[in-house]
Amino acid sequence: MKPKSVRAFAPATVANVCCGFDILGFAVNYPGDEVILTLRDDSKISVIAIHGDNGKLPLDANKNTASVAVQSLLKELGSNQGVNIELFKNLALGSGMGSSAASGVAALVAMNHLLGNPLKREDLVRHAMESERIACGSAHADNVAPCLLGGFVLVREYHPLDLVKIPVAHDLFCTLVHPHLELKTEDSRRVLKPTLPLKDVITQSGNIAGLILGLIKPDFELIGRSLKDVIAEPIRSAFIPGFDQLRSKAIEVGALGFGISGSGPTVFSISTSYEKAMASGEVIEQEFLKYQLASDVFVSKINMEGARVME
Amino acid sequence: MKPKSVRAFAPATVANVCCGFDILGFAVNYPGDEVILTLRDDSKISVIAIHGDNGKLPLDANKNTASVAVQSLLKELGSNQGVNIELFKNLALGSGMGSSAASGVAALVAMNHLLGNPLKREDLVRHAMESERIACGSAHADNVAPCLLGGFVLVREYHPLDLVKIPVAHDLFCTLVHPHLELKTEDSRRVLKPTLPLKDVITQSGNIAGLILGLIKPDFELIGRSLKDVIAEPIRSAFIPGFDQLRSKAIEVGALGFGISGSGPTVFSISTSYEKAMASGEVIEQEFLKYQLASDVFVSKINMEGARVME
Repeated sequence: MKPKSVRAFAPATVANVCCGFDILGFAVNYPGDEVILTLRDDSKISVIAIHGDNGKLPLDANKNTASVAVQSLLKELGSNQGVNIELFKNLALGSGMGSSAASGVAALVAMNHLLGNPLKREDLVRHAMESERIACGSAHADNVAPCLLGGFVLVREYHPLDLVKIPVAHDLFCTLVHPHLELKTEDSRRVLKPTLPLKDVITQSGNIAGLILGLIKPDFELIGRSLKDVIAEPIRSAFIPGFDQLRSKAIEVGALGFGISGSGPTVFSISTSYEKAMASGEVIEQEFLKYQLASDVFVSKINMEGARVME
Repeated sequence: MKPKSVRAFAPATVANVCCGFDILGFAVNYPGDEVILTLRDDSKISVIAIHGDNGKLPLDANKNTASVAVQSLLKELGSNQGVNIELFKNLALGSGMGSSAASGVAALVAMNHLLGNPLKREDLVRHAMESERIACGSAHADNVAPCLLGGFVLVREYHPLDLVKIPVAHDLFCTLVHPHLELKTEDSRRVLKPTLPLKDVITQSGNIAGLILGLIKPDFELIGRSLKDVIAEPIRSAFIPGFDQLRSKAIEVGALGFGISGSGPTVFSISTSYEKAMASGEVIEQEFLKYQLASDVFVSKINMEGARVME
C-alpha cells in the first residue's frame, strides 16, 4: 500500500562554481529545505503552510515553486491526484544557495515517492526546472540537477537537455557563508556583460577543463588553480563587501578555492577536510563582521545522493 | 659513452579539437617530421639540410623552428655544444597539423637525448614554444605540448604554464585529411571575432567540460555531442569547401565527431575503430574531390607517448 504522507529533504546547491558559469553545480549535505506532502481525496494541489519564509512566499499553487513543480509532474503523468504541501524553508530567499530549486525538488521527490516512483531522478529535472522558471524567470538547471542527482553535475546543453554527473574521486567539504544581504538572480544577471573578449573565453574554458580533471583525478592543487571566474565574479563581487579579502583569508587557512555561490551574496569555499572547511567559515564570517554584516555559516560534505525521502 | 648522432620523430598534432580553442591538443601516431642531429666539435648550431619542404623553410639557424628550439634549450643549459640538424619534413607547411611544432619538438627530443636527457619532457615544452613564436608569431603550446607528451593535453593557463595530460580511457583513432590548400595561422587568427556573446561562452565551456568527461569515462556519445565549436569554426569553415557536407559524411560512416585541425585547412575526425576512421577518410576525400581538391588522408591511433628517439 502506498504511503499517504511523506517528508522529503532537498539540499542547498552551489551553481556556477567559479569557472562553470551556467553549466555546473554541486549539492551539499546541509542545509536544505523540507516538505511534507499528504495525498488528498480530491484533485486539488494546495500549499497549506509555509514555515520560515517570513510570509514572503506565495501560497497560490500556481506561483509557489513547490506546487508548480508538482503540477508539472502530475500533468506529464496525466494524474488527477490532489496533494497538500507543507513547506519548511531553511534556505534564505535570494541567498544564492538554490533556495527555489530546493523547495521544488523536495516537493517533486516527495510526490514521486507517494506515486510509487514512476519517474527516475533524471526525469524529474525538467519538472524542477519549472520551479526555476517561476522563481527567477528562466528555467535553468544548474541548481535543480545537482539538487536531484547529488554531486557535481554538468549541464552540457539545454536543447536537448544533456546532464552529466561528474565522478568525484575524493571527499570534499563545502563552506557556505551567507551574509545578510539579499540579491535577486534577475538583477545579478542583468549586470553581466553581454559579450566577452576572446581571451576571457579561452581562460574560462581552460579553467572549467582543469576543474573537471582536478575533480576526477583527484588533483587538489589543480582544482584550486582552476576555481577562477572571469565572467560573473569581476562584476558580481562588487556587490559583496570585502570580497578579495574573503578569498585571501579562506585560502590562507587551507581552502582549495573560493567564489560566489550562484549569483550571491552567499560565498563558498571548497576544502579537503572538515577542519579546513570550518576554519574557512570562521575567517569569512569575521571578515563580513568588519562591514557590520552578520552571516550564517554552513559546513558539510559535498552531497553525493541529492534530495531524499526522510523516514 | 654518449651517442654522437641520433634520429628522432615527432608526430602531427590536432590543436583546438573543436571545443578546446587554444587550450587543447592531441597527437597522432602518423604522420610526423623527423630529424637527424649530429654533435659537432665546435659550438655552431647549423641546419645542414631540409628535405621535403620544396625549399620553403629557412636554413638560417635563427629562423628555423628546429634550430631555434635547440638554441633555446642550450641557452638554458648554458651549453656551448654545437650540432648539425638535418630535417625531414613530412608535414605540409600551413596545413593545420602542427608542422612547425613537430620540427621543433623532434629537434629538441633528439638534442636532449644526445646530452643525456638533462630535461624532462614537460620542461622541453617552453623551448618548443620558441619554435612556435618563430613560426607563427605567438608562443602557443597546444601543438607542442601533445607533440612532446602524447595523448590529449590541456593547456589550462600560460602564465605560469599549466599543462595537464588527460587520461583517456579507450583507444581512439584519428583521421586527418589535408586538402591541398594553404592557410597561414596568422591569417586564420585574424579573421576571428575579438568578442563573443555570453551564450556562446556558456556553450563552449559546456562542450569542453563534456569532452573531458567523455574522454575519461569513456562515453563515446558524449564525446560526439561535445565536439562542437562556436568560436573558430563558424568563421574558419568558410575557407574549407563543402565543410558541412564533410561533417555529415564523416558522421554517417561512424565518426564520433569532426572538425578543423588547428586553424585548418586540414580537417580531422575521431572514431572508435580503425575501420571507421578509414571510412571517414574515404568519404571526406571524395567530398573534396567534388571541388577538384586532391587531399592526403592519414589514419592512425591517438599517440600516447609523444615524440620519440628512433633506434
